[in-house]
Amino acid sequence: MRWRDKKVTRQACHLSLKHLTAKQRQQGLLEHLDSGEVVVGDGSFLLTLEKRGYVKAGLWTPEAVVEHPNAGRSHMEFLRVGSDVMQTFTFSASENNMESLWEAVNTAACDLAREVANKGDALVAGGICRTSLYAHHKDEVRIKKLFRLQLEIFARKNVDFLIAEYFEHAVEVLKESGEPVAATMCIGPEGDMHGVTPGECAVKLVKAGASVVGVNCRFGPWTSLKTMSLMKEARQAAELKAPLMVWSLGFHMPDCGKGGFLDLPEYPFVLEPRVATRWDIKKNAREAYNLGVRYIGGCCGFEPYHIRAIAEELAPEKGFLSPASEKHGSWGSGLNTHTKPWIRARARREYWENLRLASGRPFCPSLSKPDA
Amino acid sequence: MRWRDKKVTRQACHLSLKHLTAKQRQQGLLEHLDSGEVVVGDGSFLLTLEKRGYVKAGLWTPEAVVEHPNAGRSHMEFLRVGSDVMQTFTFSASENNMESLWEAVNTAACDLAREVANKGDALVAGGICRTSLYAHHKDEVRIKKLFRLQLEIFARKNVDFLIAEYFEHAVEVLKESGEPVAATMCIGPEGDMHGVTPGECAVKLVKAGASVVGVNCRFGPWTSLKTMSLMKEARQAAELKAPLMVWSLGFHMPDCGKGGFLDLPEYPFVLEPRVATRWDIKKNAREAYNLGVRYIGGCCGFEPYHIRAIAEELAPEKGFLSPASEKHGSWGSGLNTHTKPWIRARARREYWENLRLASGRPFCPSLSKPDA
Amino acid sequence: MRWRDKKVTRQACHLSLKHLTAKQRQQGLLEHLDSGEVVVGDGSFLLTLEKRGYVKAGLWTPEAVVEHPNAGRSHMEFLRVGSDVMQTFTFSASENNMESLWEAVNTAACDLAREVANKGDALVAGGICRTSLYAHHKDEVRIKKLFRLQLEIFARKNVDFLIAEYFEHAVEVLKESGEPVAATMCIGPEGDMHGVTPGECAVKLVKAGASVVGVNCRFGPWTSLKTMSLMKEARQAAELKAPLMVWSLGFHMPDCGKGGFLDLPEYPFVLEPRVATRWDIKKNAREAYNLGVRYIGGCCGFEPYHIRAIAEELAPEKGFLSPASEKHGSWGSGLNTHTKPWIRARARREYWENLRLASGRPFCPSLSKPDA
Amino acid sequence: MRWRDKKVTRQACHLSLKHLTAKQRQQGLLEHLDSGEVVVGDGSFLLTLEKRGYVKAGLWTPEAVVEHPNAGRSHMEFLRVGSDVMQTFTFSASENNMESLWEAVNTAACDLAREVANKGDALVAGGICRTSLYAHHKDEVRIKKLFRLQLEIFARKNVDFLIAEYFEHAVEVLKESGEPVAATMCIGPEGDMHGVTPGECAVKLVKAGASVVGVNCRFGPWTSLKTMSLMKEARQAAELKAPLMVWSLGFHMPDCGKGGFLDLPEYPFVLEPRVATRWDIKKNAREAYNLGVRYIGGCCGFEPYHIRAIAEELAPEKGFLSPASEKHGSWGSGLNTHTKPWIRARARREYWENLRLASGRPFCPSLSKPDA
Repeated sequence: MRWRDKKVTRQACHLSLKHLTAKQRQQGLLEHLDSGEVVVGDGSFLLTLEKRGYVKAGLWTPEAVVEHPNAGRSHMEFLRVGSDVMQTFTFSASENNMESLWEAVNTAACDLAREVANKGDALVAGGICRTSLYAHHKDEVRIKKLFRLQLEIFARKNVDFLIAEYFEHAVEVLKESGEPVAATMCIGPEGDMHGVTPGECAVKLVKAGASVVGVNCRFGPWTSLKTMSLMKEARQAAELKAPLMVWSLGFHMPDCGKGGFLDLPEYPFVLEPRVATRWDIKKNAREAYNLGVRYIGGCCGFEPYHIRAIAEELAPEKGFLSPASEKHGSWGSGLNTHTKPWIRARARREYWENLRLASGRPFCPSLSKPDA
Repeated sequence: MRWRDKKVTRQACHLSLKHLTAKQRQQGLLEHLDSGEVVVGDGSFLLTLEKRGYVKAGLWTPEAVVEHPNAGRSHMEFLRVGSDVMQTFTFSASENNMESLWEAVNTAACDLAREVANKGDALVAGGICRTSLYAHHKDEVRIKKLFRLQLEIFARKNVDFLIAEYFEHAVEVLKESGEPVAATMCIGPEGDMHGVTPGECAVKLVKAGASVVGVNCRFGPWTSLKTMSLMKEARQAAELKAPLMVWSLGFHMPDCGKGGFLDLPEYPFVLEPRVATRWDIKKNAREAYNLGVRYIGGCCGFEPYHIRAIAEELAPEKGFLSPASEKHGSWGSGLNTHTKPWIRARARREYWENLRLASGRPFCPSLSKPDA
Repeated sequence: MRWRDKKVTRQACHLSLKHLTAKQRQQGLLEHLDSGEVVVGDGSFLLTLEKRGYVKAGLWTPEAVVEHPNAGRSHMEFLRVGSDVMQTFTFSASENNMESLWEAVNTAACDLAREVANKGDALVAGGICRTSLYAHHKDEVRIKKLFRLQLEIFARKNVDFLIAEYFEHAVEVLKESGEPVAATMCIGPEGDMHGVTPGECAVKLVKAGASVVGVNCRFGPWTSLKTMSLMKEARQAAELKAPLMVWSLGFHMPDCGKGGFLDLPEYPFVLEPRVATRWDIKKNAREAYNLGVRYIGGCCGFEPYHIRAIAEELAPEKGFLSPASEKHGSWGSGLNTHTKPWIRARARREYWENLRLASGRPFCPSLSKPDA
Repeated sequence: MRWRDKKVTRQACHLSLKHLTAKQRQQGLLEHLDSGEVVVGDGSFLLTLEKRGYVKAGLWTPEAVVEHPNAGRSHMEFLRVGSDVMQTFTFSASENNMESLWEAVNTAACDLAREVANKGDALVAGGICRTSLYAHHKDEVRIKKLFRLQLEIFARKNVDFLIAEYFEHAVEVLKESGEPVAATMCIGPEGDMHGVTPGECAVKLVKAGASVVGVNCRFGPWTSLKTMSLMKEARQAAELKAPLMVWSLGFHMPDCGKGGFLDLPEYPFVLEPRVATRWDIKKNAREAYNLGVRYIGGCCGFEPYHIRAIAEELAPEKGFLSPASEKHGSWGSGLNTHTKPWIRARARREYWENLRLASGRPFCPSLSKPDA
């Protein structure tokens, strides 16, 4: 397995970040994380492709990878903006959600992810997620079988590692996989519905075999960092070493309760006013880094420009800018040549850092009360 | 030139959009509009591709059509959601903005638009827009030459009609073209900086040779309808017949002044909280239709799902749903099977029509004051 | 009739408001206004005393002047903060609203106003207001009789001038009075329900005998100035000389329509978040002055500290500060000695002028839609 | 000492609350609380009289009781709306804040409070509060002497009980007094600056001699109930019996930190948009009662109509309405006769309970960040 050729990538960006002395390497996820390097994940597929017309809200299955492979190729956007990992678009793609289509979808998703990854020496991660069967039946045999079916395809397609994401309960399946597993939970700082705290959860995941632990989805960027902080504390108290990852939502939702964004009345169709800005994400990525998180990506709502914001903020640590930063002046510097002086005046960091942006919706409130 | 076979498509719509067997018809923009049919335009390219990493904010030039043709092919998303017109991605692509690249860009943009249009019997519109030269020099000879260079490529590439958009001043160039021209101005209900009212502007455009008149960009969906209402009145008073078009921004900006969204402090990087929802656009499309507007599309901020909202709202008039409506349950009906009862309860029209969505940003205001 | 001795008071002001030895002068409202001097009106009685427990929302009658004379004596607060006029608390005190109580109320109200006015050489204004009879019956004979009954008491009690306020229609009764009349309408910049513009209204009032014209109630401070600006224009066009007065609401209500604050869903019990600050009113008073308005007071929602803000802003023009300014450091200077440095840092003009104050209500919107 | 004659009061209200069988009683604070009766406190003096022009923001001393006794008599408003206790207006009236004036102020404040209390058989509470000396010097001898000087006057004037309020640290002085002491702290649910929790604080106060414990000032109505809930838990855990009291601010401030409202940038001059409505306070009073709190009053921002809202909400428990409820229709019933039907439609509970009131300030945010 190979890693992105930093030298080549750097060539594209050498005008922005000088004096890099990177070595081309053959290296996987854990080597990178163990050496303290930052790994940038990819972003939103389901909600993003729903808005492009390829995914249906509700069951949220990824049949697009066989129906519209070009849509599934939107991985390419994430590669260009700086993602180091292409996750297979296999959310909810287990047999019980997709019936006879499941196998074709998992296979095609692996192929698409690898096709794009190869264009930038990125890693491919096979993604499995919780099944609603657990909540209903707790039929462990059935659930493990579903996971095994997907894992067999991932193994055959030779993914570089596995991501077990969107779990609400610390899972047993993890140990069975030979690959490194990055495992994330949908959990907020107040813990889950059964009273499990983020810290207990992190420790359980590691003991169940996770190489990397963290949170994904359901909570906004700042709330997720609060959870990570609690996971980090517990990991230290338990003298465990697993690196930390975070993939928050790309939406501001300080008002959601334990259940996360599903419970907010705006989910899933009118989350627009909550979308984070690039500057929000830049700041959040730096704070995640300062907290010790090294695998930083995004979940629902993370568009390519949000991932680019992460990659740009952490460019000093990574040593290079991604190709799509050619299309992004630092702190709005592309406005420098605007004909209107008051727009040119916006081409600076202080402006964007301090602006309190308006919603344009004076008849709407700032916060909602969760339904549940 | 060919157009989507509505009769067959409508039948297909009854069959859940399957087994489409489109027959090609020979009919152009004006025939459709003259017969009272609705024409759905496409949406946002510049701001949308900026967020995907392919366009740079500031000069906003469309070099992506040669650098990343697949990105330029995002026309495909608009076709799937219901656009009847594929506009060439040639905004700001005149020679004085793009130097030696201009010719390749205009040529490639025509080819990409036609390639996609052919997949759905859509029309291709060649797009020209204002040049900042006018504001600075008023060098008419130079400006007309720039336009002529682009028009020659559009003629060679056999576009179906022209769109002269984003003008701040009623233009002279229009008469020179043999194709029908849809001409739009960036003008709000209060008129332009020189005291020209929307009504005067509409009359001037028609007299200058525009077959269709309206507004695009700079103002939000509701403000733009106020302007259209004034244009309609003036058109009637002048006993002119030109059909009306509207392409507003996909952002709420009741607070922008005469200069439109450029003057708002949030432009262009933190407009997120202002993005219109699909339900906003549905309602707006119906109101545009009721006002007599028949060519309805979108400008900056109009994502595919917004165009789909127009196409769905006007499906009774058009007689068919677009393919991407397969991925969109009516008023959120895809939530019907959700495991949580309070989320299932959201699968109904009254819910989404009455919800006052929150911004999730309690430290931010609702409105801003324009800079200029 | 006597007026505050400004020369002496101004001198006193230099002495930190001590050692006042007022001399009585004989001068009325018009002499003051004609000489360009500023007259500061008083503020809110009905809504203010409702909150103190003495007035009932709904019919809004002033029986408090006989039931609780000390409450009616809250004129004293306005005198102390700088009001030059004590208006009789006789709103809605006509016979058809108050039955047998009307005479005692009008008489007591005159006595209370004079009692307080005499403590500061202020003027007493007898106040009459619209009757709902007009809207229902247009029974001119009956309405004029009601007005005459009140006016007879005012004449007997020797008020210094009359205020005909809260009218929705330009009235005929004005000419019958021998006293100068200050007449105000409840009208916004968009005109009244019958299409009468503010300008037409101002001209009619003057021609009907008003010595001073303006607006009171129903609209917020900034909206009222827009109306005044239109009245001023029309007055000039008609070559009339009547001085201008303004008594806006002490509430921000940019969202109310033609009908004013009655139509807003918050009226009358939950207007709290809309209450103007002292700094808002300072700024507004200056703008009113710059527009040429010389009689500046307040209507519902104007608490004593709002009137003080007017008097302080216009102290350079008036030549003195009112006694209650002893209890009000300029721009918060009283915070200078606070033990917490971040609170001391608030004791300056720039701080309060630029602060964007929060509502503390994140579940509430910024604007409402009028009911009517 | 006598208590309000409920029979007489009831007579005034017998149309509202029927079948009362109250006995006239000679009873003090503790007897009432011990028997489970509700005691309604009074409300805001400092901030309220600042707005009327009698108190200066900053040092907040109550010289008004000698300078303007009528202003100091605004106790009368609280008596009328239902307060069972008249607290002497002696905040910050210790010798080190008021110099030679201190004695006259404390004496006059006792006389004014008794004068009003006698009109309604209310109790008189002598109020002492923290001194900033403690924070600076911790000079216990000096502080105790200051307290003793005030207490001597209270003893001479025969107040019915003492309120030790606005303390930031559990105090020692309490034991020295022979009267029952109601002691309140300015503490939020997160505890004080030294890490003392509300529970620890409550227990300390009782052990130091307080007969009644609770919180006053600095935090909003809902935040204060969270603190009370914690105090209640700790009191139970410690098997103590002291009744509970709460006097929150009359402002919404969910955004203030540990330091309370002083730290919010709006303090003290632009808190207007945060003022609680009468319906907010009604709901809050019921929740306080349900929590077990029996002495319920208000601190800064509690106007008479807020106290009336408490008295009305708890009228079923108290057995009578206060006189000022004659001027307050239940849930806005006074609007029943309004000429406009949409205003009549507001005369009902559901309307006011569900209304999400607007701020009228679209350029302002919902929340602020504390300064400290």
